[in-house]
Amino acid sequence: MAPSTPKARLSQVKGHLAAPEQPLATRFRPSLPPGLHPSFTPLNPLAFLLRAAQVRPDHVALVHPEKYLSWTYSQWAIRVAQLAYALKANGVKAGDRVMVIGPNVPFVSDSLQAVPAVQGILVAVNTRLQPADVAYLIQDSTPTLILVDAQFEELVQGTVVPVVVCFDSGRDDDPYEKLLAQGAAYDREHGSLGWSGLEFQKDELATFAISYTSGTTSKPKGVETSYRGTYLAAVANAMESGLTFDSVYLWILPKFHCLGWCYPYANTLAMSTQVCLRSVDYSEVWKGLLERGVTHYCGAPTVQLAIATHSMARKPTQAVRTTVAGAAPTATLIKQIEALGITIDHIYGMTETFGPMTKTFFLDSSSPTYYEDKARQGHAFRLADDVRITRLIPEGEEHKVVEGGLEEVKNDGTEIGEIVMRGNLVMKSYYNNPQATAKAFAGGYFHSGDLAVRRPDGTFAIQDRSKDIIISGGENISSLAIESALSSHPDVLECACIARPHEKWGERPHAYVVLKNSASWHGRHAAFEKELKGFSRGKLPGFATPEWVEVVDALEKTSTGKVQKHVLRAKLKELLSVGKK
Amino acid sequence: MAPSTPKARLSQVKGHLAAPEQPLATRFRPSLPPGLHPSFTPLNPLAFLLRAAQVRPDHVALVHPEKYLSWTYSQWAIRVAQLAYALKANGVKAGDRVMVIGPNVPFVSDSLQAVPAVQGILVAVNTRLQPADVAYLIQDSTPTLILVDAQFEELVQGTVVPVVVCFDSGRDDDPYEKLLAQGAAYDREHGSLGWSGLEFQKDELATFAISYTSGTTSKPKGVETSYRGTYLAAVANAMESGLTFDSVYLWILPKFHCLGWCYPYANTLAMSTQVCLRSVDYSEVWKGLLERGVTHYCGAPTVQLAIATHSMARKPTQAVRTTVAGAAPTATLIKQIEALGITIDHIYGMTETFGPMTKTFFLDSSSPTYYEDKARQGHAFRLADDVRITRLIPEGEEHKVVEGGLEEVKNDGTEIGEIVMRGNLVMKSYYNNPQATAKAFAGGYFHSGDLAVRRPDGTFAIQDRSKDIIISGGENISSLAIESALSSHPDVLECACIARPHEKWGERPHAYVVLKNSASWHGRHAAFEKELKGFSRGKLPGFATPEWVEVVDALEKTSTGKVQKHVLRAKLKELLSVGKK
Repeated sequence: MAPSTPKARLSQVKGHLAAPEQPLATRFRPSLPPGLHPSFTPLNPLAFLLRAAQVRPDHVALVHPEKYLSWTYSQWAIRVAQLAYALKANGVKAGDRVMVIGPNVPFVSDSLQAVPAVQGILVAVNTRLQPADVAYLIQDSTPTLILVDAQFEELVQGTVVPVVVCFDSGRDDDPYEKLLAQGAAYDREHGSLGWSGLEFQKDELATFAISYTSGTTSKPKGVETSYRGTYLAAVANAMESGLTFDSVYLWILPKFHCLGWCYPYANTLAMSTQVCLRSVDYSEVWKGLLERGVTHYCGAPTVQLAIATHSMARKPTQAVRTTVAGAAPTATLIKQIEALGITIDHIYGMTETFGPMTKTFFLDSSSPTYYEDKARQGHAFRLADDVRITRLIPEGEEHKVVEGGLEEVKNDGTEIGEIVMRGNLVMKSYYNNPQATAKAFAGGYFHSGDLAVRRPDGTFAIQDRSKDIIISGGENISSLAIESALSSHPDVLECACIARPHEKWGERPHAYVVLKNSASWHGRHAAFEKELKGFSRGKLPGFATPEWVEVVDALEKTSTGKVQKHVLRAKLKELLSVGKK
Repeated sequence: MAPSTPKARLSQVKGHLAAPEQPLATRFRPSLPPGLHPSFTPLNPLAFLLRAAQVRPDHVALVHPEKYLSWTYSQWAIRVAQLAYALKANGVKAGDRVMVIGPNVPFVSDSLQAVPAVQGILVAVNTRLQPADVAYLIQDSTPTLILVDAQFEELVQGTVVPVVVCFDSGRDDDPYEKLLAQGAAYDREHGSLGWSGLEFQKDELATFAISYTSGTTSKPKGVETSYRGTYLAAVANAMESGLTFDSVYLWILPKFHCLGWCYPYANTLAMSTQVCLRSVDYSEVWKGLLERGVTHYCGAPTVQLAIATHSMARKPTQAVRTTVAGAAPTATLIKQIEALGITIDHIYGMTETFGPMTKTFFLDSSSPTYYEDKARQGHAFRLADDVRITRLIPEGEEHKVVEGGLEEVKNDGTEIGEIVMRGNLVMKSYYNNPQATAKAFAGGYFHSGDLAVRRPDGTFAIQDRSKDIIISGGENISSLAIESALSSHPDVLECACIARPHEKWGERPHAYVVLKNSASWHGRHAAFEKELKGFSRGKLPGFATPEWVEVVDALEKTSTGKVQKHVLRAKLKELLSVGKK
């Protein structure tokens, strides 16, 4: 670990720590349901926190630097138990939903462990939603209790569901700390059982969480994940991203984004240190990397881009490893991150696959195509079942696909199919939505909606979201491929490409481009558009070069950092209809 | 990886490789049974081999240096499929037992993957058994087929079960290679399905293997392990012993020893290279460590001692990590291994726990008690359920113990209890032996028969096997503690201590000691006995110092490297009865 770790730098703050007389090994023992065979324990990621509390009780588990708060594994495990009892005291029973709305602050970390500790179902909500969206999620998931950060209280104003507002102060008068005190009192009244009073879920296939998709085109869907899947995803992530006992993980990725891609549990498995960050301030990120020994973080391409292009960016002295996902990164971005000495794992997955599910393995960093290779999606994780690329099912013919009836595309790197997956790292179902579930699982596989090719080496590479593909003169053009080519221009910060109707070709690409601050083209947009078209002709086949290039100030993104192409499409549609009038 | 890897050094040898036209990603896809939910894949360690064959097809998977044989992951996966079809061709059906008798040579490696590939049950037999012992195992497990190495053919002479004798030549005229050719032909006749014709086991709790205990005191018991447990044990071992993509694993530990502690599957998960070794020649081991880039091996204390005291012993240039288990190593031995720059993981477990289950975590190497601390048993693995130390059940009162009725010992480092364990890394049952199973699982936990104390820090430390404890004047004396003290004498190679009847004290310790070659006491045994008694008085309480010390040439060991104390006891008994006559 780097010399100045949070452990050394931050003072301990007292919690409402019960003081049971039990030794560590028994105080933090999972309480298993009766009737299990001695050779069987249901997989449950809470076991990682408890093992860490037994084995590494005095190691800093969770640290919140901006509030001078820090908890060791034994302290944290006690706080989690207190929150669990508080949930019980407030009527939360097995199977009840508990909604959690907050940034990456400690009460969210606690909740991600405490809700399953009472066999409740986690509903972690995106803080960037509007009150009406949250109202819909409340209506759909019918939570028993809502924990909300004070900053986002307006999101749940007017709800009839009981709400605890958390002020993230760590002070005794904070309603959240009072809630923990209530939990501690409840435990005392019931015999001071600590973790031994929190029986583990018996059925490893039971629902662990409902994570709502961002719902860009329809109502958000609630992705139901299991204990078993969360456990295996945590092991897979710890393994594939190299989390170790010495790791210091910085929380940039929102924990509400499919439970932080299961990294809350990958970190407790690794018995590492997790660092909270209320809002993504890139100066704080760089202080973490340069001064505070951060070794790991995850982030979408837009986050990675902000890190790579920040004024403080320079090579950290310790080894740093990051995972990028959420949208396909360009080769240029991967190169920028690796130029900073940061090892980048490009992974692919979605909320329906517990986050990460595939990555690129064994690339030759001396190859001229190294960065392009890394921008592909690679292979399924070692603990994931296979990922298949199957021939597209024509709209309306989903019912014809029967079990096993999916056909593999050729492994020629050309034929485009849909990415489908199955297995322990795939969701159980969409909550309350059997129709959407049945459609998503047509043929026994989860249909991602992402289009890809299978290359001769067995790896796969995303071409596009099925709705983003541009069909021009009968050719399927990957908007991603165009964006990748345009992004390699030294003056382009980022770009997005959509289909624009075209009389002759049906559709032609329309590119929206954001210039770098350093670019000399500001104020000379028309000239740059010409320049970029010329540039792209050397990189793309003629039918794929953008017909229109438009310089914009910024690209609108979803709460999880994906470019909102549907917004671009709507704007373009409006523009074209105005043009016609 | 070190510069001279087996990959670079050994020529490839052709196998009977089928040449399917399928791409890697689909050629090596597990064939899942119908009817599974898209969110569920039964845990099966074969998935690791197949993933490695997809992702790292050209990496050396298995190498047999003394025969110039070597296979990449794709080649190996094809050979395994051929063996699997050969098993089918020879009538092996799901649930049938297949017996495998051989040293650490390729056909054993192949079998450990191919038998489960046809849903057969592995019975890997100790090559050091006598023909009569093997006859008993055949009678108990009723195998459909036996694969035996030519060196050990006499072990199965006269059996009515079909036997394939393997000559470990890799040549086309080797009966084993002919068997593979038969498997390839069978596959061709059935449509050249390759792995897609080998349906995976649907029930992850089905029996994967029956591993027989050495049976020092009774008939060997067949330990039935599951697919799920083998999978999770493999993940646990890869994680806890730090196997990586760059690892080169040397097979010193016999693969018949509870399936090589699941390392065959931990290695395929790590996509590492496994090196065969027909017989444990320590010059070859040291060549591996010094010249051939070996990074990992496992071995019992007796093996580690031979490595540490070998004339070629010096620090390898690459990082080497070893796992010691099978019997408790002394602090002295751990110190000797670490003095060679080899990181040693001391793990505890038994055949009934898939091998390794606990280890010491987070020791302070600057502590004066570091080596003693490492000689303890530590904590359960992160993927294992808890290990408990519970109050002893008086003989004959096992029936009184009901579910959950086991009482924890004090965590004072003094009270002795029995090590009991449960969970995914515990066997299903003893094959064909419901009585022994019921006894072993009294109270819902597996009873190890090992005695230990729980220390205040939550770690546990073995005191003795229950039958090895010496009871002298009402004191329970750990024979292990005496052995540990005597082993720290600079002239002692190894020793073993048993109880000898004593008129006044009931029992008193009798120590058998092997001198180091370098010791100056050879020929002066009486003087050394006096010297060692004096030495032990400074290390042990009076009641624990050995009453008798006897220098012997060697200690008789079991096939798995444990000292056969029952042999010492029998000899002592005979000696005492002669004395009385």
